[in-house]
Amino acid sequence: MPRRETAKGREENEVEFSRIVAFSDGVFAIAITLLVLELHVPDHLHNSKEVWEALWDERETFLAFAISFAVIGRFWIVHHRFFGEVKAFDGALLWLNLLYLGTIVLIPFSSQVLGEYGGDGAGVAVYAINLAATILVGLWMMDRAHRIGLTNADAATRREGMVRAAYIAAVFLASIPVAFVAPGFAQLMWLVLFFDPADYLARRRT
Amino acid sequence: MPRRETAKGREENEVEFSRIVAFSDGVFAIAITLLVLELHVPDHLHNSKEVWEALWDERETFLAFAISFAVIGRFWIVHHRFFGEVKAFDGALLWLNLLYLGTIVLIPFSSQVLGEYGGDGAGVAVYAINLAATILVGLWMMDRAHRIGLTNADAATRREGMVRAAYIAAVFLASIPVAFVAPGFAQLMWLVLFFDPADYLARRRT
Amino acid sequence: MPRRETAKGREENEVEFSRIVAFSDGVFAIAITLLVLELHVPDHLHNSKEVWEALWDERETFLAFAISFAVIGRFWIVHHRFFGEVKAFDGALLWLNLLYLGTIVLIPFSSQVLGEYGGDGAGVAVYAINLAATILVGLWMMDRAHRIGLTNADAATRREGMVRAAYIAAVFLASIPVAFVAPGFAQLMWLVLFFDPADYLARRRT
Amino acid sequence: MPRRETAKGREENEVEFSRIVAFSDGVFAIAITLLVLELHVPDHLHNSKEVWEALWDERETFLAFAISFAVIGRFWIVHHRFFGEVKAFDGALLWLNLLYLGTIVLIPFSSQVLGEYGGDGAGVAVYAINLAATILVGLWMMDRAHRIGLTNADAATRREGMVRAAYIAAVFLASIPVAFVAPGFAQLMWLVLFFDPADYLARRRT
Repeated sequence: MPRRETAKGREENEVEFSRIVAFSDGVFAIAITLLVLELHVPDHLHNSKEVWEALWDERETFLAFAISFAVIGRFWIVHHRFFGEVKAFDGALLWLNLLYLGTIVLIPFSSQVLGEYGGDGAGVAVYAINLAATILVGLWMMDRAHRIGLTNADAATRREGMVRAAYIAAVFLASIPVAFVAPGFAQLMWLVLFFDPADYLARRRT
Repeated sequence: MPRRETAKGREENEVEFSRIVAFSDGVFAIAITLLVLELHVPDHLHNSKEVWEALWDERETFLAFAISFAVIGRFWIVHHRFFGEVKAFDGALLWLNLLYLGTIVLIPFSSQVLGEYGGDGAGVAVYAINLAATILVGLWMMDRAHRIGLTNADAATRREGMVRAAYIAAVFLASIPVAFVAPGFAQLMWLVLFFDPADYLARRRT
Repeated sequence: MPRRETAKGREENEVEFSRIVAFSDGVFAIAITLLVLELHVPDHLHNSKEVWEALWDERETFLAFAISFAVIGRFWIVHHRFFGEVKAFDGALLWLNLLYLGTIVLIPFSSQVLGEYGGDGAGVAVYAINLAATILVGLWMMDRAHRIGLTNADAATRREGMVRAAYIAAVFLASIPVAFVAPGFAQLMWLVLFFDPADYLARRRT
Repeated sequence: MPRRETAKGREENEVEFSRIVAFSDGVFAIAITLLVLELHVPDHLHNSKEVWEALWDERETFLAFAISFAVIGRFWIVHHRFFGEVKAFDGALLWLNLLYLGTIVLIPFSSQVLGEYGGDGAGVAVYAINLAATILVGLWMMDRAHRIGLTNADAATRREGMVRAAYIAAVFLASIPVAFVAPGFAQLMWLVLFFDPADYLARRRT
């Protein structure tokens, strides 16, 4: 399908295009770094033993930090690959990208909820809802861009993107019911997100 | 009108020019991400039900977050389009841009006031004053740049920019009296900022 | 004077060079945006009148915010102009730049001290010491770079840089004794930093 | 050794490559700037003398700030040099870089622990463990990239990188036992990180 009339080509608008990417990278970089603000060390401890105990008591928070760091990193890589294929942009892409970034920016908050209430179904559910929103908006943005011809992705790359997004969505959906029975195990399930089925398929193809 | 003597061309000073844009993008990205720091989850809750209730009690703060995210995103798009047309810069443009960014940086603060006191006229007024300042400084910066020939915008683009700015200003001005009668409704009015009359006009023209 | 052997040319190392600039811009952008975290609105107010009063009680903090925003913006412009002239870099320039950024990063802290204890000599002195450190490190970095031939600045530009730095230093030094008599007036003096004698001289020359 | 099939060349993917660098720079810049959030000035002091005393009581925190600023700056320079030599990237490099950045992001937290419990062995150990993790992940990333041919570093440059990393690692390892006897002295030892043996060797060679 041909590009819309109002879309701007990437080549002719290199500075404008690279600003979209730079702004997005900035938001990702800040969101991923703000995660550290969740981690606190209690005041007024008296000796090394108490410091180690305080850190051990925060193990849920450290786990939430590690998970969220990996998750935001993952989304960044997906975003990075998608924009590597974008060849033109329009106003709607800008807005969808902002909406996508809005869900990314919420992750440090949801991560804090997870760190404090990861033992309750609610804590895990808030987190999974946040990430499901990111994935759905991401799918919307990417699918629309492919469909109206803003990218130069071939069928294989598009399928790869779909496989990757579907995989992430499946992991989160599967974890929600598990969360109500065994919240800790639900979080461990998310670690399989480090595995990338699309990469695996791509490598097998070559 | 010819460029001032002291203005530097964009092409001959590409690195310096792109630093202005990069610095601005950085400030926008950080301001928009700091919005998440408004959101807190109370400590020491005992079960899932209390977590959901605590989140529900914060609904005003979530609304303020969503509004401010959309508003900063909107300003970023306007800024992005304006600098796409800038062809030369002088010291005054740098300072006006800094002043503009100064009003952007205040938005997370005003947003927090809005989130906590959105039910009072004062909370809504503080927010509307902040945004009115952003718009006025933005108009000053853009109009001056067009006037002294720092941009290569044609008459249509300049009119578009004016329509867009006037539209945003009108929405905020209209919301202030409404705020004193029905603060919640005043905030809902701001959602019409997602609609862009200049885009609409531009699309109709083509 | 010829470049040192170990200096790397800017042209041959464009990516490395632009990372130095991008990293510096990032630090400036974050430091200037973190200033907003100084501003707080008290919790548990009951009506619009109390909100306005709370904001009025924070006027010192708002003043400190405005001053620090202008000051960091000013330093960014100076840094921006200096790196516009840099043509080669060595390890020492990287370290001096880091030291310079270290003093920039402290400004949000000093600004908070100023906002809370601006009425005392100590509050103003802490702030002035921070800025004096920034200026001295900046002079060291710039003068060394000019001297060993890392920049392509002509004599006029170097003199301009010196005039600018000396002017800023003079304003801060002059404000310290004033601070012990009339702290509020000392802060007002800093507003003259918005005037740029080097720009003025440059404009008169042309 | 030839590049892997799945690695992407830097030249053909300039935008994607520069995003990796820009994202990393963003994370470094934010982590180094967040260090300032450790510094607090107590509320409700009554005169200049109390302000000076409060600042003096925080001298451990200021020391931790200075050390961490230098340390993150150091890691940034190492990262900066490494990516200056990278000529191709694959998925694993992206993940290793994220893991590396994950350890960088933890430094403001460890630095806070150091500032508050630097007098205890535990405080110093937490910090040293964090930095050891950064160094080990960094070595893994860099060594792998050199080995599978993602960089165009010659033998001398690789040796330089190894010398530099081994030097940093040696300083931290040596400081841990010292920390349990004299925590303050262990921190002073870290200041020798400002000296760069690889630079020194490189300069002697020329």
